[in-house]
Amino acid sequence: MVQVLRSRNGKVAIDRPGDPELQLHWLLAVVLITAKLFGVAARRWGLPAVVGEILAGVVLGPSLLGLLEIPGSDGNGDALSGLAQIGLCVLLFRVGLETDLDQVRRVAGSAVILAGVGMLLPFVLGVLGASAFGVALLPALFIGATLTATSIGVTASVLEELRAGGTRAAALILAAAVIDDVLGLVLLAALIGVGAAPGSAGIEVGIAVAQAVGFLTAALWLGPPLARASDRLARWTRSQSIILPLVFGALLLTAAAAKAAGMEMIIGAYAAGLALVRHPERAWLETKLEAVIELFTPIFFVLVGSSIALETFAMGTPAGRTTVGLAALLFSAAILGKLLAPLAIRNLDVPVLAVGSALVPRGEVGLIFAQVGLSEGVLRPDLFSALTLVITATTLVGPVMLRRLWRS
Amino acid sequence: MVQVLRSRNGKVAIDRPGDPELQLHWLLAVVLITAKLFGVAARRWGLPAVVGEILAGVVLGPSLLGLLEIPGSDGNGDALSGLAQIGLCVLLFRVGLETDLDQVRRVAGSAVILAGVGMLLPFVLGVLGASAFGVALLPALFIGATLTATSIGVTASVLEELRAGGTRAAALILAAAVIDDVLGLVLLAALIGVGAAPGSAGIEVGIAVAQAVGFLTAALWLGPPLARASDRLARWTRSQSIILPLVFGALLLTAAAAKAAGMEMIIGAYAAGLALVRHPERAWLETKLEAVIELFTPIFFVLVGSSIALETFAMGTPAGRTTVGLAALLFSAAILGKLLAPLAIRNLDVPVLAVGSALVPRGEVGLIFAQVGLSEGVLRPDLFSALTLVITATTLVGPVMLRRLWRS
Repeated sequence: MVQVLRSRNGKVAIDRPGDPELQLHWLLAVVLITAKLFGVAARRWGLPAVVGEILAGVVLGPSLLGLLEIPGSDGNGDALSGLAQIGLCVLLFRVGLETDLDQVRRVAGSAVILAGVGMLLPFVLGVLGASAFGVALLPALFIGATLTATSIGVTASVLEELRAGGTRAAALILAAAVIDDVLGLVLLAALIGVGAAPGSAGIEVGIAVAQAVGFLTAALWLGPPLARASDRLARWTRSQSIILPLVFGALLLTAAAAKAAGMEMIIGAYAAGLALVRHPERAWLETKLEAVIELFTPIFFVLVGSSIALETFAMGTPAGRTTVGLAALLFSAAILGKLLAPLAIRNLDVPVLAVGSALVPRGEVGLIFAQVGLSEGVLRPDLFSALTLVITATTLVGPVMLRRLWRS
Repeated sequence: MVQVLRSRNGKVAIDRPGDPELQLHWLLAVVLITAKLFGVAARRWGLPAVVGEILAGVVLGPSLLGLLEIPGSDGNGDALSGLAQIGLCVLLFRVGLETDLDQVRRVAGSAVILAGVGMLLPFVLGVLGASAFGVALLPALFIGATLTATSIGVTASVLEELRAGGTRAAALILAAAVIDDVLGLVLLAALIGVGAAPGSAGIEVGIAVAQAVGFLTAALWLGPPLARASDRLARWTRSQSIILPLVFGALLLTAAAAKAAGMEMIIGAYAAGLALVRHPERAWLETKLEAVIELFTPIFFVLVGSSIALETFAMGTPAGRTTVGLAALLFSAAILGKLLAPLAIRNLDVPVLAVGSALVPRGEVGLIFAQVGLSEGVLRPDLFSALTLVITATTLVGPVMLRRLWRS
């Protein structure tokens, strides 16, 4: 907040090291404007805006222009990724808020089957594919697990673009995506248990399941009374303006609580939305939050794009060719596994392939798997790069397929 | 974006150092909810919400609960203050956007007189007061200068609360506040010049004036064609959703450019609003941006409150008593100087004291003066503390007076 101005070479210059607010403003403006222009271009060519935004990230990121500092390396990257997370949380909150709970109850059984089959197929195909490239069992299991969890953020964003919010298929897809995200994190706990101390895997899994179930139950159970309380407070103070900050605060707290319980923040935000489905000011809240979503979610997709390290895929070297070959195989496993999963369920009101393609984008959870594998020494750097490429490619291909198939 | 999960003591734990996103979510939720509850309480007692939000900062800050990390000390403080700056910039942008340019032209002459007198009175009173406490000339000049510039952020926020947006008095107050902010920064350049190398003060002032004037001219001149371009792009892409990110990006860039030209970011944001006054989607933009303002500006006031170091005013020690005495004298100078300034102009449609009290809150620029004085070794730490207290007290007292006097 407080900057120091100081005289330097006869000019008034800003002297605070790095001047983070100034840099944040520049970065945010560049990211937003580039993302929107690429997004609009993508839409013009019949592609989802998300694809353009990810490509904007590739262009701005370290592989090409190098304009974005790498997240985690300094305060600005963190601030940018904090804003991206806020946008994504608000998006998932609104998706939760728009949910028709009766519809979710009706699709719950199908969603569990869809999520289960949609995890099992890419997992098995991934493990087999990696083994075919001579990868040992534990890293192969890690690679398979990386391909299991759908990116709720990408899928929700494309469904929004398609205005598919209230449909039965959207409810099914989102429920399956949440379930496979939670199951994915349970699987991660199990694999870490196997890798670290083979005996303790059962305990790890038990704790992870208990935390996830406990959290989701608590969120859905505490939500309605809190919604009534915030509404009563607003009436008592005769000020509608208090509702938005209180709801926003509650959604951030739920997201942080989800993280503390070992899940992704956006699952917490989604749960907060579900919990407030019967909020008296629901429609008003949805409209109010639009600007936050429009301004901050593009940052997330730009950061996803900027995490792609193009240089690890130098086709000139034998190592580069092997990496690309493995990546191609894993990519096929990732796509086929999700596309075929909906064959396991009945009564779809949209094409099977549309539902499957909605589950194709991988994101956060997959990147976490890859990151843990790398830092635990289970995955070699080239395998890590291959996985990052596969994950990012699914976020590009999934939305394109979904957009095409949903219309037909 | 990418977190590392790792097995630790048999539990799945988040292992990224500090986990900034999680902390940002917690902090933001705590700040927002506390700020809103204090703001609502303040409103209930007939005080402006801003006063409650500043008091929330005092309670959350290092002097009492110590829940907020000090801005600048780490990534989270910076991220929080970055969000606060974004909120404030959007607020000032909207204030600019709502401006009636013809009205500004009519009040321009009065605004210059009001700003000039409103700077001169507290400056002279401050220098005399400090000298009476035995402060040497250069530090006394610094202290006087600290009391000159109005906080546009606080004043604009209270005028919004009073729904005074379109009035002649509001146009006059805001124009005077912008002018005294710019003049304040010119004064700072002059004082630094005198302190560092007495001969170069003229050059410093010349450069500062040229930068400020050049920037404001460029912003107002480039704005209208850019507004037309963004509107044409939106029509061509048949997507209204592109306008908001482009305008938001442009406002961030203007704010950053203002900073680079030696001014406050919020002056740039205000100029961007003025420049887009004739934007075809002006009314729609104003509604859209409400949520960003409501969610992020309270952070600014909480951070202002949290910067108050209560412990430097220990009344038990002689030094503490002297500090409090000097602070009380400077506080009177700060209040009186601004309250009496409107006597210099004619044709007010609101009470003289209401206009004066609107100029009472000091903020950013005053804190910058104090900070520069401290870091240049001109101001002793106790003088710095006294100035910080005076500046914060004006942000509390000004809005209370404005709210009372505006109604009468």
